[in-house]
Amino acid sequence: MNTTYRVLIKSKDEKGLVYKISKLFSDMELNIISNSEFVDKAHSLFFMRSEVSGDAIEQKLLRDKLISLLPDGADIKIVDTSVRKRVVILVTKEIHCLGDILMRHVEDELNADIIEVIGNYDVLEDTVSKFSIPFTTISHENLNREQHSSLILQRLEKLDFDYIVLAKYMRILPPSFVSQHRDKIINIHHSFLPAFIGANPYKQAFDRGVKIIGATAHFVTDDLDEGPIIEQGVTHIDHTYGWRDMQRAGRDVEKIVLSKALKLVIEDRVFIYNNRTVIF
Amino acid sequence: MNTTYRVLIKSKDEKGLVYKISKLFSDMELNIISNSEFVDKAHSLFFMRSEVSGDAIEQKLLRDKLISLLPDGADIKIVDTSVRKRVVILVTKEIHCLGDILMRHVEDELNADIIEVIGNYDVLEDTVSKFSIPFTTISHENLNREQHSSLILQRLEKLDFDYIVLAKYMRILPPSFVSQHRDKIINIHHSFLPAFIGANPYKQAFDRGVKIIGATAHFVTDDLDEGPIIEQGVTHIDHTYGWRDMQRAGRDVEKIVLSKALKLVIEDRVFIYNNRTVIF
Amino acid sequence: MNTTYRVLIKSKDEKGLVYKISKLFSDMELNIISNSEFVDKAHSLFFMRSEVSGDAIEQKLLRDKLISLLPDGADIKIVDTSVRKRVVILVTKEIHCLGDILMRHVEDELNADIIEVIGNYDVLEDTVSKFSIPFTTISHENLNREQHSSLILQRLEKLDFDYIVLAKYMRILPPSFVSQHRDKIINIHHSFLPAFIGANPYKQAFDRGVKIIGATAHFVTDDLDEGPIIEQGVTHIDHTYGWRDMQRAGRDVEKIVLSKALKLVIEDRVFIYNNRTVIF
Amino acid sequence: MNTTYRVLIKSKDEKGLVYKISKLFSDMELNIISNSEFVDKAHSLFFMRSEVSGDAIEQKLLRDKLISLLPDGADIKIVDTSVRKRVVILVTKEIHCLGDILMRHVEDELNADIIEVIGNYDVLEDTVSKFSIPFTTISHENLNREQHSSLILQRLEKLDFDYIVLAKYMRILPPSFVSQHRDKIINIHHSFLPAFIGANPYKQAFDRGVKIIGATAHFVTDDLDEGPIIEQGVTHIDHTYGWRDMQRAGRDVEKIVLSKALKLVIEDRVFIYNNRTVIF
Repeated sequence: MNTTYRVLIKSKDEKGLVYKISKLFSDMELNIISNSEFVDKAHSLFFMRSEVSGDAIEQKLLRDKLISLLPDGADIKIVDTSVRKRVVILVTKEIHCLGDILMRHVEDELNADIIEVIGNYDVLEDTVSKFSIPFTTISHENLNREQHSSLILQRLEKLDFDYIVLAKYMRILPPSFVSQHRDKIINIHHSFLPAFIGANPYKQAFDRGVKIIGATAHFVTDDLDEGPIIEQGVTHIDHTYGWRDMQRAGRDVEKIVLSKALKLVIEDRVFIYNNRTVIF
Repeated sequence: MNTTYRVLIKSKDEKGLVYKISKLFSDMELNIISNSEFVDKAHSLFFMRSEVSGDAIEQKLLRDKLISLLPDGADIKIVDTSVRKRVVILVTKEIHCLGDILMRHVEDELNADIIEVIGNYDVLEDTVSKFSIPFTTISHENLNREQHSSLILQRLEKLDFDYIVLAKYMRILPPSFVSQHRDKIINIHHSFLPAFIGANPYKQAFDRGVKIIGATAHFVTDDLDEGPIIEQGVTHIDHTYGWRDMQRAGRDVEKIVLSKALKLVIEDRVFIYNNRTVIF
Repeated sequence: MNTTYRVLIKSKDEKGLVYKISKLFSDMELNIISNSEFVDKAHSLFFMRSEVSGDAIEQKLLRDKLISLLPDGADIKIVDTSVRKRVVILVTKEIHCLGDILMRHVEDELNADIIEVIGNYDVLEDTVSKFSIPFTTISHENLNREQHSSLILQRLEKLDFDYIVLAKYMRILPPSFVSQHRDKIINIHHSFLPAFIGANPYKQAFDRGVKIIGATAHFVTDDLDEGPIIEQGVTHIDHTYGWRDMQRAGRDVEKIVLSKALKLVIEDRVFIYNNRTVIF
Repeated sequence: MNTTYRVLIKSKDEKGLVYKISKLFSDMELNIISNSEFVDKAHSLFFMRSEVSGDAIEQKLLRDKLISLLPDGADIKIVDTSVRKRVVILVTKEIHCLGDILMRHVEDELNADIIEVIGNYDVLEDTVSKFSIPFTTISHENLNREQHSSLILQRLEKLDFDYIVLAKYMRILPPSFVSQHRDKIINIHHSFLPAFIGANPYKQAFDRGVKIIGATAHFVTDDLDEGPIIEQGVTHIDHTYGWRDMQRAGRDVEKIVLSKALKLVIEDRVFIYNNRTVIF
């Protein structure tokens, strides 16, 4: 039976890596469908993403062989493309990013399962239910940040998921939350990072009189809005835009940028290092 | 003889302004070629730019009549379109923004005269001379900021100019300079404001791992890089761009954005207020 | 009671129109909120869109007064902004454009009512029903184009609507249909017009090896894909995109472009003339 | 002495190519600096561009070894990066594309030599001479297309060049010319291909009422404006743009797109096949 695997390698760079890795694929009778490499020379780091197909293999065997030929400390990820990723979405009240993902879900464009939506309000429950996706409301009322976050963590523990998408989830996740799901949380920031960090960036952008606004999808780290950037988009505006018009124009950018970023992540195209991303 | 005028009005908003102004044009037998209006409701401000044509008029008369019908404190600017604007360019060592303006000058696309280029180095003198434009070197060596700036001011006093363009002029102008030429100095900022203010924004952008870089043309105020924005542009980049690649890609955005902004200003399309611009 | 009206005027150009119209507004105690004008000099045509507010007026009176002061043959449209536009959507099988509109509908971003969705397949009925919007299937099976079209026309006659949106409706409407709903039908063309007219433009674009693809929202006329353009958008692609990848990337452009165009039309910002649009 | 080579391979695809090629590099002690691969599955074609460095090698030896390990009919190109490409530019009267290249030449951004500019008018001679680049006028007056073309061919024969850039050269080159310099002629088309082929595309675009205009850089083939596309760009316009405004706005796109394409070609990043390009 023919299976397709994605093999992702991040390691110290050294001479002959492509040769060694492609030899291994050849030896294991895996055919390379696509291959992308990048070397960060400043840090002497090697990145490779290969799609290979062949008879179903023992992933452990492939991993062990890769470990033995790669420099010490290499990160190796082997993904069977027939296994669908599982995604949890966190929301507050705004529908545009969630709605965009839901519609792609209906079309099965993302090739992933949305297994649950969690909201700190129940405003979007009605819409989500229409798509036969479970919605859990975990209100933050009368709770401090840690208490609320730990309720969400408890709920997440019961779910088997690969990624958490913050689709306009308007609360800050505490370090305890972020550290438990490192490199798994994708956020859409309603601004063109690093501009206008913090509350109401559209009001800030209006005050600054900008002619372009944007949005940034990034992984969440402890540094608010400062995690590795996956995708960015912009749109032009002019002096006739009040900050609410900017917000509305921004929504179109936000939803497309978040969905693009999600797709890149689901297809295992994104490497994270030094608070940056390599995207194949 | 038929003459075309641009009439720019900024005033407190009140009912009937368009009617009163257009009645005046009609009474003075000035035909409206184009008309743009904008009201900033939050600040109750009225902006209007009209192109009108008719027999040569006494500009003082038109101005007086406008003053009498507009709310107190109105700003009025009347421009005879047959009079070419005069532009001085300040440079340091980089050629791309200057070169783009020079080539447009050769084509007479800007409908303005470049009367002099001033550099704090003589690196670009050779190129500028080829275009029969005077080049003056005013070195900053062994001078403090104020001393150097005052030498430039002395040179500028001898020139009759409308606008100063900082075409990658890499020194900060002191408040004494800026206040003397308020709303007349156009800068290109090598970044997508308000991001990465300060030195080497491309290095900062690289470290932040951005996927889009940009440039901002703005009027210069005492707040470094914080003056009213005229035009912005962006370009997409990816992980393969080192900061020098970003800088090179940025140059293409910088030169186009600066030239567009200069054109808008020369055509009297830009109003400044509250550190923002209205652009017709 | 304060009411806001949009007054849209298209007429032969002549001296003093702005003055006459603004005088009328002033005489009728209508305050101008915003005003946009454009003169097509080549055709000597005058376009004006004013938002005015004041006590509720007799629209007929305003219209009669405008007729009396404007050149013969002027088009005048007066719109009470408190009356919501009513929209019918035609679809086939693809969900992305419809879904984008539905989500904006949930947010009430469009300030219009979607009163019915008509499909020549029932594929999307399920999704539409979730939003409590009627869905009517009018199959084209065993019918020729005229027969099918006349069934849709019969259904439309029972609906009171302002605009018909073809949200990836994949059948050609016959002239009889188009002529009955002139300037009311908005289509999204899955290509960057005028390129790649006809079937499977993404396949054509792939064969041509383009590096940019786009989408065009336009009014429908008898000339297939040749009606007045309202809005266009593009996205960059590269050699790794097969035509299905291009199609998928194109969907993101299509939905945003169609929704933007719909919004412009609903806000009465679009004038049509000479197979072109003026958009304020 | 360390030398950097670019190795470009286009061949029938087969299992193990990356392995075989990277093994050869390894055997020859060439270090891979960067590596890009692409497989066109529909046509079973393999493309690879490697930058390798090592001691100066016998290029013939590397080529022979590659031939022996690659499928029959493979195209192999080995480039010593220390050898500068030589470029001839053909112009008519417009300066913007030429000027953009000249300014990059001054900055040595292109890493290539402009060895001559040939014009069918002498309009641009003056500007070119300022940059100490030879200008040859070959007038087309009183000559038919073949006669004029053969004069240019005669001039080109005396020059040792790698690429010919048509920087707004407004005459059609006959098949005899094109076939002699296959895959070496780069043109900028003043339109967003495949739209508006032929004369005055800006007039055509105006008549069509488009909201976006663009430009396309492509290799020249016998099919007018139909050669493999290298790079495209666009800019937004609106109803206030007459066709001359569109032309002027288009110039900014044209020059940036042409210069980007030229840079890609000079860096050996462009493969041509099936009237398409693969760009690494």
